[in-house]
Amino acid sequence: MINSIFDDSYFMKQAIKEAEKAYEDDEVPIGAVVVFEQLIIGKGYNQVERLKDPTAHAEMIAITAATNYIGGKYLKGCSLFVTLEPCVMCMGAIKAARFSKLVYAASEPKTGFSLFVEPAYYKKIDLIKGVEQSLSKNLLQDFFLKKRGMQN
Amino acid sequence: MINSIFDDSYFMKQAIKEAEKAYEDDEVPIGAVVVFEQLIIGKGYNQVERLKDPTAHAEMIAITAATNYIGGKYLKGCSLFVTLEPCVMCMGAIKAARFSKLVYAASEPKTGFSLFVEPAYYKKIDLIKGVEQSLSKNLLQDFFLKKRGMQN
Repeated sequence: MINSIFDDSYFMKQAIKEAEKAYEDDEVPIGAVVVFEQLIIGKGYNQVERLKDPTAHAEMIAITAATNYIGGKYLKGCSLFVTLEPCVMCMGAIKAARFSKLVYAASEPKTGFSLFVEPAYYKKIDLIKGVEQSLSKNLLQDFFLKKRGMQN
Repeated sequence: MINSIFDDSYFMKQAIKEAEKAYEDDEVPIGAVVVFEQLIIGKGYNQVERLKDPTAHAEMIAITAATNYIGGKYLKGCSLFVTLEPCVMCMGAIKAARFSKLVYAASEPKTGFSLFVEPAYYKKIDLIKGVEQSLSKNLLQDFFLKKRGMQN
């Protein structure tokens, strides 16, 4: 049997493309896509600086885009792919939207949800981490190196 | 010394006014205001149904309004007044926005942040609960009684 090209790695690479848009826009490069039955129904990238809005994370934008697209407030059966471990706010939104699956690339050792949120809260969500994490980490490292270079 | 009329109760009543707008709009009646030095710089009410967006909670709308107003992404020194205990998403947004103080009226015994988020996460935020809680509870009870009546 031939495996579908539409695996977790494929969709994470689409999220990385979103993160690259953030990078180009001088934002911390984080991107997200919402997938339903192998179809991307929402995408977003970090726009906190552009919008001066602390809630404008990639995941929030992708979730709002997806619910606009389907015209409903729940995303049951959908998967969220994001290039960095979500923060507490975004994990709350993922739960509120009733996602079935969350896939993230790199872990966030300071502000990631897994440090602060009880596992009971997200026990119904299929959780996969580490997918294409080196792509995400490299992009983030490049961004912060560039920033640091600009400051010197 | 005469106490200022601009106390926690005053601002919570302004949040209740926002919740009443949600009620009129057939949304679960929850409202929020952002206050900086006795000035309301952002307000919002629950619009999840109207927008079909699970992230359109009163707090999120009030936070985005306030950051738009000040043209900055942080709300240091600001207080958030909300008529119901925030969910995990909203508590994450409150933290991301760097609020100094959170005041809520009624507790939310099923989905409130305090059930799922580690206290260490919000230890820097001055937390006050129970302010005008009966006003908030009555409005919520009226709403759900009305809803139930319509279903029978």
